[in-house]
Amino acid sequence: MAIKLVTTVAGLHAESARLLREKQGASQGLVPTMGALHEGHAALARTAVEQNDVVVASIFVNPLQFGDAVDLDRYPRTLEADLALLDAQGVDIAFAPLVEEVYPGGEPLVRITSGRLGEKWEGASRPGHFDGALTVVAKLLHYGIPAAGRAGGVGLPAYRAYFGQKDAQQLALVRRMVADLNFPVDIVGVPTVRSAEGLALSSRNRFLSDEEREAALVLSRALRLLEERANAHEPLDLESALAMVESQPLVTLDYFDVVDPATLEPLAENCRETPFRGEALALIAAKVGPVRLIDNAPLSS
Amino acid sequence: MAIKLVTTVAGLHAESARLLREKQGASQGLVPTMGALHEGHAALARTAVEQNDVVVASIFVNPLQFGDAVDLDRYPRTLEADLALLDAQGVDIAFAPLVEEVYPGGEPLVRITSGRLGEKWEGASRPGHFDGALTVVAKLLHYGIPAAGRAGGVGLPAYRAYFGQKDAQQLALVRRMVADLNFPVDIVGVPTVRSAEGLALSSRNRFLSDEEREAALVLSRALRLLEERANAHEPLDLESALAMVESQPLVTLDYFDVVDPATLEPLAENCRETPFRGEALALIAAKVGPVRLIDNAPLSS
Repeated sequence: MAIKLVTTVAGLHAESARLLREKQGASQGLVPTMGALHEGHAALARTAVEQNDVVVASIFVNPLQFGDAVDLDRYPRTLEADLALLDAQGVDIAFAPLVEEVYPGGEPLVRITSGRLGEKWEGASRPGHFDGALTVVAKLLHYGIPAAGRAGGVGLPAYRAYFGQKDAQQLALVRRMVADLNFPVDIVGVPTVRSAEGLALSSRNRFLSDEEREAALVLSRALRLLEERANAHEPLDLESALAMVESQPLVTLDYFDVVDPATLEPLAENCRETPFRGEALALIAAKVGPVRLIDNAPLSS
Repeated sequence: MAIKLVTTVAGLHAESARLLREKQGASQGLVPTMGALHEGHAALARTAVEQNDVVVASIFVNPLQFGDAVDLDRYPRTLEADLALLDAQGVDIAFAPLVEEVYPGGEPLVRITSGRLGEKWEGASRPGHFDGALTVVAKLLHYGIPAAGRAGGVGLPAYRAYFGQKDAQQLALVRRMVADLNFPVDIVGVPTVRSAEGLALSSRNRFLSDEEREAALVLSRALRLLEERANAHEPLDLESALAMVESQPLVTLDYFDVVDPATLEPLAENCRETPFRGEALALIAAKVGPVRLIDNAPLSS
């Protein structure tokens, strides 16, 4: 494998500087992950490799964003397979630090707070989740700043970080954090990767039985219905899509709504009853058997 | 004047890049201020100029850290005198943005939260103050990242930011934020500048009458008493220093304590009754007439 595994911030910076010089690199990409990588992460990594001279993927299961220690312990860890997947996409550096490297002084005292954008939707069922997620993303964005100037030039390398559209609220919050606090990085959102049947890829899908996996398809089907109506400039008629999901007995809906893509505030009712125009985001979350799944669809017309 | 005034982030980056190239600069220093500059700020600027090839001073009265709109309106604005003072110290760039440049989307949604370190001492009498202060410091630290690589070299410029020891809790919190969130900057604390009589310089001193100014000297005298005892490895005997302050009728004490310099937690009683050894910080805050003043002394023995 060509990919280089580093476990310390100093190692990351040394390797990044070496590669930026060796490749006369003008850009660096960061792909933050929690490991347990699948084709969705591969798409993030491929996009980053296409757009940057040097690409770093981080693998770190962040204890701060798990409310529940059992959930944290249960989170799958598959480092060898993850490295092989990243290497196959052309990622240069895998940064897989221990918890002690990321939090040398124990839990951080000064943190990021996600405000009201982090309290709704996923935040409502996982209190503190986004504060913990943004705090580690802030750290990772700082770690990933290119560690050297351009060889032979005087400009700084461009710096981009890649997040999946699948976690739409996380992506909106990261964009907002970077704008509100002026992090020196461009955030790139990468479209959700789906199975042939339409199921959004997630590390949690492995916990679904065959029957549950089949039932879970109703989420993406309902989203596709809204997409088709938006594309046809028809009223979205969220009610009928909702009824479709509720007809599936293995699925317990948590939320399903059409929101503003930046603020995640529900759009006025008339967006649903009058012909759809503009930009919106359909968000859905449900328990399928014991597994909580989320999915979303950007709507544009 | 040689100093260049810029009011936009884009202008700051363009001027910083130009100067780093022109001077073949290997380092950049940032001096964040709220204007109303005095000799204390001059010391910050001089230290930054000594240690860096390019120095930026920011002048921005941050609405986020004022609980009270009257207090915000009343805060002195003296831009021309500020520019002259910075220019005299050799500062290259003054960055004086409007509120709209710093908060283009209105108040930030995603913020820094200072945790329990921001709730005590000054934070107890100014709820939310340090969250607002750290949020704008995070933005300023990001703005000030050197905007170009080294001319002719491949290394990144070093990056340092300068804060006064006078605002000891702010300095401790900024250090903690930079460590907890891994900002790519070195924080440099600069010793407090005092009048010949010992009064710590502050933009608020202008609101003191002659009589109050005289009375306020008891704060630095009490701190000096503790310093002398610490230097002599004597018990600190905080009680007697406290009695000294309380004997001054124009002074209403808010707090006076000896704390750990990093956590700001009060040190155990035996630090005061047994001969002093180690590192500590004496913190004092009081109202002198209508003006709230703070001061502190690092103790080391």
